[in-house]
Amino acid sequence: MRIILDAMGGDHAPEAPVAGALEALADLPASAEVVLVGRAAEVEAEVAKHGAARPAHLEVVDAPEVVGMAEKPLAAVRSKPNSSIGVGLRLQREGKAHAFISAGNTGAVMAASALMLGLHPGVDRPAIATLFPTVSKPVLVLDAGANVDCSPRELRGFAHLGSVYARDVLGRSSPAVGLLSIGEEAEKGNAAVKEAHGLLKAESHAFRFVGNVEGRDILAGEVDVVVCDGFVGNVVLKFYESVAHLFTGLLNREMDAGVLRSEAMQRVFTVLDYSTYGGAPLLGVRGVSIICHGRSSARAIRNAVRVAVQAAQCGLSQHIGADLAGGAAT
Amino acid sequence: MRIILDAMGGDHAPEAPVAGALEALADLPASAEVVLVGRAAEVEAEVAKHGAARPAHLEVVDAPEVVGMAEKPLAAVRSKPNSSIGVGLRLQREGKAHAFISAGNTGAVMAASALMLGLHPGVDRPAIATLFPTVSKPVLVLDAGANVDCSPRELRGFAHLGSVYARDVLGRSSPAVGLLSIGEEAEKGNAAVKEAHGLLKAESHAFRFVGNVEGRDILAGEVDVVVCDGFVGNVVLKFYESVAHLFTGLLNREMDAGVLRSEAMQRVFTVLDYSTYGGAPLLGVRGVSIICHGRSSARAIRNAVRVAVQAAQCGLSQHIGADLAGGAAT
Repeated sequence: MRIILDAMGGDHAPEAPVAGALEALADLPASAEVVLVGRAAEVEAEVAKHGAARPAHLEVVDAPEVVGMAEKPLAAVRSKPNSSIGVGLRLQREGKAHAFISAGNTGAVMAASALMLGLHPGVDRPAIATLFPTVSKPVLVLDAGANVDCSPRELRGFAHLGSVYARDVLGRSSPAVGLLSIGEEAEKGNAAVKEAHGLLKAESHAFRFVGNVEGRDILAGEVDVVVCDGFVGNVVLKFYESVAHLFTGLLNREMDAGVLRSEAMQRVFTVLDYSTYGGAPLLGVRGVSIICHGRSSARAIRNAVRVAVQAAQCGLSQHIGADLAGGAAT
Repeated sequence: MRIILDAMGGDHAPEAPVAGALEALADLPASAEVVLVGRAAEVEAEVAKHGAARPAHLEVVDAPEVVGMAEKPLAAVRSKPNSSIGVGLRLQREGKAHAFISAGNTGAVMAASALMLGLHPGVDRPAIATLFPTVSKPVLVLDAGANVDCSPRELRGFAHLGSVYARDVLGRSSPAVGLLSIGEEAEKGNAAVKEAHGLLKAESHAFRFVGNVEGRDILAGEVDVVVCDGFVGNVVLKFYESVAHLFTGLLNREMDAGVLRSEAMQRVFTVLDYSTYGGAPLLGVRGVSIICHGRSSARAIRNAVRVAVQAAQCGLSQHIGADLAGGAAT
């Protein structure tokens, strides 16, 4: 098992990716290897800060170019074939690695993943699948930003992808899939959602569609997968990330500092911390590509490695390929 | 000042509207009057439960028909002209009242308000404007569900409406207006939002447009008004309402019951309680129409009356009329 990690990606690179890789290696079985891809001298220097000897299962591969966080994705991917993103994904395409992880320019990682790994037959557009923490099990929301204007057919595709991921990686035996809308009734929603409702209903052989869900149902824990376009998904995801800050602000204002620093309260905030979930898979590509938050900490990177290993171990990409091919044949 | 309250609207009618009206009257100046519209016998019986003598400033007007919460809005409005919604709005149209409040069928209240009060010249579509609590001042988000598929021109109209409301009712002297998107850059967003960005920028004489805001910026307290289509606004609003439940659930699991029942924690939850804000105005109609949550409690209704009085007192509808007429002339 070889996991490629973009050492130059993210607001805190190379510090956070390097520290996250080292933390991840402590958890991983001896058969797993982490490959840091980036400017070799910089990466080696960062690794050296953590101690004299480099761990046996850590490799550094040189990639002389770097895609900036604010660069235009497609132009950057094309003009910098030897960026950490380009080199890393090429290793996976050539069968030399099982997964790629990056906290870098999200648009560039998406574009490069789709171009270099390709899409499974039957997939119109890949989707970013994010986990939303709830009081019980987390819920998978997709798309979280890969596709802003989505056709009903694309929304149906996201339901397929999310259902396979929930079943194979999250271990939900018959995942309930809901379509995000503004009312439970089939006729509620915008034009794309209303048409998608009919398409999803017609695919009941492929996944368990439970109908429309509303904003308030996302965290209720009654569905495993919530399908929406990437505009709505991205807005709600970022809104959710900001809610922990709001709580902290309100509690700071009203409560004793002792309560805030208590272990119990820390557990509450750990649940709400996006870094607990590490990274979001880009579903639909032929391979495993994990997209991390630009602000990812070492902890987030470590958890993203865990997500990548799970996805690779369970053969996610193969299952999606088989499932979509089956779906397309009906 | 005469405020009409739909006594038959909402999941807890007529109990909650009647109790809310009585609570509201205790706060209001002697010049204000609350008119309960609904099946007179039922309403009178409910009023009687609260004590022997009906307050001097409380009136009951009979409306024999009732629009159910699940009825098709337009059909209900047309087939039941003597519903509490129809009778109540007619009183306002005839100049016999200054505002209408309902926790009933939202679609029916919107449709009847637009049909019976009419729209101000220059308004394409009315919008539901909701207040989102933050650590500092609340932020106005519109549209929250009146219009699901919005044109760029309609989004521009919401910016106009929200800006006037923030200035005149919320007392923000030069309200900052943000456009909800998935990135700060002008070229980020779905097709309608990208085009709306240009329209909003061109209207800088009419309101203070500060550019795109993301999901995480809504609660940051740096803008006064957030503009979005009614699909996204409704999803985020309902999601936000559910967050207090999530937080309660997590705290219940992790903390002592004593902490949860503390006054400080109660203050935190009061901030997050939608009933604090009472009702959301339907902006753009010629008059004042306040839409309440179907589940409104007496407290929510009391606060909705306060919102209605503020809107009527400051001449909101007249200001919107003047402002939009000015905007249309440029």
